[in-house]
Formats: sequence, structure tokens, C-alpha cells
Amino acid sequence: MTPEHGGVGEHPTFRTAEAPLVLTSPRSDAPVDRATDAARRVVDALLRTDRANANLERVAEELDSIAAHLEEHAPEVADRLVDMWRGEGVTRHDPVTGPENAVAPPLVLEGLADGTVRGTVTLTLAYQGPPGCVHGGVSALLLDHTLGVANAWAGRAGMTAQLSTRYHRPTPLFEPLVVSGKLISVDGRKIRTVGDITTAAGELCVSVEGLFIDKAVPRPR
Amino acid sequence: MTPEHGGVGEHPTFRTAEAPLVLTSPRSDAPVDRATDAARRVVDALLRTDRANANLERVAEELDSIAAHLEEHAPEVADRLVDMWRGEGVTRHDPVTGPENAVAPPLVLEGLADGTVRGTVTLTLAYQGPPGCVHGGVSALLLDHTLGVANAWAGRAGMTAQLSTRYHRPTPLFEPLVVSGKLISVDGRKIRTVGDITTAAGELCVSVEGLFIDKAVPRPR
Repeated sequence: MTPEHGGVGEHPTFRTAEAPLVLTSPRSDAPVDRATDAARRVVDALLRTDRANANLERVAEELDSIAAHLEEHAPEVADRLVDMWRGEGVTRHDPVTGPENAVAPPLVLEGLADGTVRGTVTLTLAYQGPPGCVHGGVSALLLDHTLGVANAWAGRAGMTAQLSTRYHRPTPLFEPLVVSGKLISVDGRKIRTVGDITTAAGELCVSVEGLFIDKAVPRPR
Repeated sequence: MTPEHGGVGEHPTFRTAEAPLVLTSPRSDAPVDRATDAARRVVDALLRTDRANANLERVAEELDSIAAHLEEHAPEVADRLVDMWRGEGVTRHDPVTGPENAVAPPLVLEGLADGTVRGTVTLTLAYQGPPGCVHGGVSALLLDHTLGVANAWAGRAGMTAQLSTRYHRPTPLFEPLVVSGKLISVDGRKIRTVGDITTAAGELCVSVEGLFIDKAVPRPR
């Protein structure tokens, strides 16, 4: 669970836990994780495939039939929300790290001994902004989430109040990017956290400063 | 084509075109759009379905088999990129408005006579941050893209240099949100553009100020 996600609970921190420690939900061998991985592969392949030669009409029909099967077994959204947020563990469904969310790349973040959280991710066509580059808004999305995980790793939780994102150079698709975050100060309920995205060679692409307020949206019950 | 996407070309502007005008790629009846819509439905249904009762093993196999078919017909990524960016039209593949990108909700933006661009979108579980609310980073993603479209509607194009996002109240899932943007000043190569996300009742959830620099990543050829 990250601060974005409703509370601190028994979240490990860099003061209490052995580092490095994976802080996001690892992809497991569970059928839902495998199905979500396959859905990610479909999303990517739809962007890459030849519009004229692939049988996209059949693909549309098959995907609709899969969705119908899944929907048939879906509880009411209100009930599903309660289930999703049950327990105090790390969530599995967010759009950045969630192994159950095909929108998520997913990014895996580790907590380091100095309080930094860090992960490496390679982004593909679904995240494109300028030609061959990561969409600026996608960088902001990854960083906002990473700062939330950094807060948790420092033992804090808060809602994002302000996020200032600076773009230093185009962020490349198709190569490993290092995403980092670290809480730098706490002043009453105000939490300040910074982060960045660099290439594997250490070139700074995007940096961010976040202000978080120590409060949370209650979990559905 | 938005400024994020490489240039201005013959993009209509509020000074030259009849308003209101849809500025993003409309969803069409093309097989790729229908397949992408169905993929979106699968992504959502995977988050909603009952983990114990749906046949997720079969779903994983079927999705992998669909992906394999699409990949079999996929050209090299470098060639696909050239094709993707061909012509000077509005792109169809970005992660916010792209009808060919299942990561995109998709948001449809209209240009208004006063230079504002505006769209209404209802976000679902794939975009969740705090319980029942839109992820703060997703709001930043939608706004960054909207500001780019607002720049184009004002006849400008630029790369995002800085994006300052403020969160005023939690942004709800499952209800219509109004996303707006407008270029407010140009000073040499510096373009300043603002935007916000409100509920349908007009409650301000997120506001943003963007600084863009008038330059573009060249299109692949």
C-alpha cells in the first residue's frame, strides 16, 4: 500500500526493515497476473501490428468475448472496491506498479538503505508522447506514484497537494529508465519529496518536487 | 497531431476554424479501433472480475494467442514508427486521446471559440489512485496532454518544459469529469498554458500550469 492508497498500516520503512526491499507488489504466478501480463502484450501488439494484414475484426470479437466472460463473473463495483482495499498490504491494482492493472508497465520499486526508492523500467509504444519518446504526462504519472512509495518507505503517508515536474531532455522509449524518489523533509503535516527519471547512463530526463499533505481517503468498507 | 507529437503542420486554430471543433482523433468503425475498445474492456474487466470464479487461466491463454497473432503481423518497430507519424493529421496512438491505444480512456477534446479546449471523460478502475478516486499522476497525464492540444488550437507547438499540478480535492472515479486547457501567453519561445479538471457540477479537483518551449522532436522517416 502506498500513501496514495489510503494509510500507512504496517508498511516497512528504511529505519525498520532490511534494505534493499521490494516495496511494490511482485508479479506472481497467479492466473490474474498472467492474464494481465497477456493483456499488456495485447495492448502493445495492437499498437504495433499491421492494420491491413492482421485479422483485427476477429481480434475485436475474441476480446469482446473474453471481456464478457470476465464481466459475467464481476461483482458490483462497490463490493469489488471493498475487496480491492482489504487488508493493509501493498495494493495490486494501481496504474503504475499494479501487476493486476494492464495500464501499469508495471514499475517495480525497491527501498534502499538511505531512504531512496528506485526502480528500472523500459517503456514501449503505449506510453509514447513525442516520436520515440515517453509522453511527458506518463513521466509525471510514474514520478507521482514513486514519490508516494518513497513517503511510505520513510514511514509517512499523504495525499499529493502539489507536483512540480521539470523536463530536461526527451525521455527515450525502448531503453531502461531509472525512476527514483526520496522524502527530504517533514514540516507538520507537509511532506516534501523529490524524484527523477534518468537513463541507465545517468542522464537526467525528468525531475520532480512533490508536496504531500498527511491525510488519506478512507478505505471502502 | 498535438504539439507533444512533433509539429504544427496544418492544424486548425481557434482563429482560423469554426468552433466547436473536435481536435482529437474520433473513434471510428475501423477494425483496429473496435479491437482497441475491446482491449480496454478487457483491461477494465480484469480489474473487476472475481479472482476465484472467472476462468483466468483460459483468459491468459486466449490473450497470449491473440497477442501472438498480432505480433506475427507486426513490422519492425522502426518501420511502424515511421508509419505512425506519417502525414500531418492528428495522431491516433497517444496514451490520452488515442483510439488505437487501450491505455487511453480515451479523452475527446473539442476546441472552443475563445481558445479553450475541453473534454468530458469518466474514468474507471484502471485509473485509480486513492480508494474510489483518480490517481494524481493520471490527472497530471490528462492535463499535460490537454495543454498540448490547447497550444495547437492556439497555433503553437512546444515540448513540455515544466508542469505544476495542484490537487484541490480528490478527483472521483465513475462520474463525468471536465478537462480543460487554454494557452494564456507567449513570450519568445516560452508558451504558458493553464488547465484544470472539475466535476460536472464545476467543483475544482486539479489545476495545472505548464511552460512549453517552442521546439519539437523530429518525426521518424
